[in-house]
Amino acid sequence: MTHPTFDYPSRWQRAATLMERDGIDALFLMKPANLAYLTGDGRPCALALLTRELRCIVAVPACDVPSVRNASAATDIRAFRSEEELFHGFRDVLHELGLTRATIAVEKNFFDAALYEVFAAHILPQARIVPASPIVSRLRMLKDPAEIECLKAAGRVADEGVAAAARALRSGVREIDIAGEAELAMRRAGAEGWSSTTYVASGWRSAMAHGPASPKTITAGDVVQMHFAPIASGYTVDLCRTFLVEPVAKDAVNALRAYVEAQERGIASAVPGTALMGIDAAMAASLEQAGFGGAFLRPVFHGIGIEHEEAPIPGGHAVIHGEQTVEEVAAGMVLGIGNCGIYREHFGVRVEDTVWVTEQGPVCLTHYPKVLNTNGA
Amino acid sequence: MTHPTFDYPSRWQRAATLMERDGIDALFLMKPANLAYLTGDGRPCALALLTRELRCIVAVPACDVPSVRNASAATDIRAFRSEEELFHGFRDVLHELGLTRATIAVEKNFFDAALYEVFAAHILPQARIVPASPIVSRLRMLKDPAEIECLKAAGRVADEGVAAAARALRSGVREIDIAGEAELAMRRAGAEGWSSTTYVASGWRSAMAHGPASPKTITAGDVVQMHFAPIASGYTVDLCRTFLVEPVAKDAVNALRAYVEAQERGIASAVPGTALMGIDAAMAASLEQAGFGGAFLRPVFHGIGIEHEEAPIPGGHAVIHGEQTVEEVAAGMVLGIGNCGIYREHFGVRVEDTVWVTEQGPVCLTHYPKVLNTNGA
Repeated sequence: MTHPTFDYPSRWQRAATLMERDGIDALFLMKPANLAYLTGDGRPCALALLTRELRCIVAVPACDVPSVRNASAATDIRAFRSEEELFHGFRDVLHELGLTRATIAVEKNFFDAALYEVFAAHILPQARIVPASPIVSRLRMLKDPAEIECLKAAGRVADEGVAAAARALRSGVREIDIAGEAELAMRRAGAEGWSSTTYVASGWRSAMAHGPASPKTITAGDVVQMHFAPIASGYTVDLCRTFLVEPVAKDAVNALRAYVEAQERGIASAVPGTALMGIDAAMAASLEQAGFGGAFLRPVFHGIGIEHEEAPIPGGHAVIHGEQTVEEVAAGMVLGIGNCGIYREHFGVRVEDTVWVTEQGPVCLTHYPKVLNTNGA
Repeated sequence: MTHPTFDYPSRWQRAATLMERDGIDALFLMKPANLAYLTGDGRPCALALLTRELRCIVAVPACDVPSVRNASAATDIRAFRSEEELFHGFRDVLHELGLTRATIAVEKNFFDAALYEVFAAHILPQARIVPASPIVSRLRMLKDPAEIECLKAAGRVADEGVAAAARALRSGVREIDIAGEAELAMRRAGAEGWSSTTYVASGWRSAMAHGPASPKTITAGDVVQMHFAPIASGYTVDLCRTFLVEPVAKDAVNALRAYVEAQERGIASAVPGTALMGIDAAMAASLEQAGFGGAFLRPVFHGIGIEHEEAPIPGGHAVIHGEQTVEEVAAGMVLGIGNCGIYREHFGVRVEDTVWVTEQGPVCLTHYPKVLNTNGA
């Protein structure tokens, strides 16, 4: 595998300490991001049980066993040939380990409600089920140095994507053409895929909260939001830039300047030991001061790493994402800051960077220049 | 919007007939694919309530209201500024419509279990909640002629992707380079995004059930699986081809020939009025006859349309996907046939097409030639 090898025994040990604290006997894992973090292998359609005694049993499609053996830190690998066999086989594992009546932490923010009901009734009928996110998200929220190297690599890939998009941008091309050029440049720079669909939203489409590239043709005077989320070395970043196609409208310039200012204040406030919601407050105050108090959406930031949105998730949004509320900024967090933007009737601007929180303060992992990226018509 | 306009009143009427049958007062929708099908607008982070009396209330981010007004068939559009406002605002809508104690169908195979618990307790505390898939999936499973046109367009895009990948394939290039060329060609042909990540899996990686493109370099003698799922006009197809880089190994040729033969028998058995699982049986019998009885995984097919995997989902897999079991092939179904492949110790082969079931029999919507696509080293 091309991905680095992380220190899984140390991760398991920290997981076991939290399991001990919470009276949990085992973590049941199906979310690829959690499987990647705790076993080194995050392929879809697999599952794992990590016990407090540090046994780690993984079940994968039969054909995947040789490659999982190379990639995974699991202590025990089982094979299945269908989804039914996957779940039924796992009931046997629980029985074998004497965990039928145990307290099992389950990824309740990953399982859909329908599957969860079937799973709870048929695979864990006698177990006590608790959510896994207070353990797994807490571990994943603070990145170690090897993870930061992966995130830096992903940041470089995203920067290449924006550079290629900027070169392709002119009136007369379609949003999907720009997306294609950016994606090709990111693939050449090492992108293994995308953690979120590529956004290229121009003109009236830039006023929408979500703007996947469409066949719309870019025209003179368009505001163009571009939002890229490549995956490299198993990690992803968020990078958004807004370009103004000439002739540039004054209100778009003003909004973009105001948003960049607010975003930079948000980044500057990502300092260990301060309130996590201070990032939100800093951005909101700056936008209000500039006269855009009612023109933005929340959340203005989110954690990022193996997933596009992960812990910490700010404020009340945490509940909706099945995550715990986090009070303080901590060194090791990696945040997408600038999420959502200023939205006007006919256009919107957004600028987002991926920011690593260090003891010395915030460090951007994405670098493409921000202000007044204009392109001739 | 560039997407065609479908006959939403007719879809609502059919939904209401099924709601009447099942004693359901309203459908609560958050899954983008269902929102797209029933309102014409499938943006993320939106929700809708479709009542049996054919009121359709949609809630979207405040900035999106103008574009939703253009794109959506909804009778009533509400705005929100945060996820909390989204859910709380919706409680008010239910109260306003007198549906607080009603029977509400909810997408239980879309909501995650954690959010579902919060939602059921705080937004629908007095309602009777039933699953929405027996209604919405049943409607979406049978495509109308306008949908087939979109699927044909997506099929043409996927064919362009495979053609570009074939041109780029040679020993010495990386899987992600081939993915990049294929994605660029698909963007130029109209791709709005991807319903599944692009797979390019070569050599030992082709033996895995899931093979997203990686930085692995392709070498002489590699078996190369390529799997593309572009979205065009809001619909998606599945197209997989296996290429053999010279010098070609005899066992790979034999496996590929056997899988193509089995897949074609599977396609031929997708005839209205016959058993849906007959497709599985036809492929399994063909593979067993060729000596590959133990070398494939299930499911060997799935429905496809707005989503990469949708109804009909075969056999026991339906339960895991929160879908109803479907007994018979019906005209209007669109199926990805050939899902999963033949897996050997050191390589795997797979061939998948998107197939429209008509009264006259199965019609492939993806066309790239199948057998013995070889490329010089």
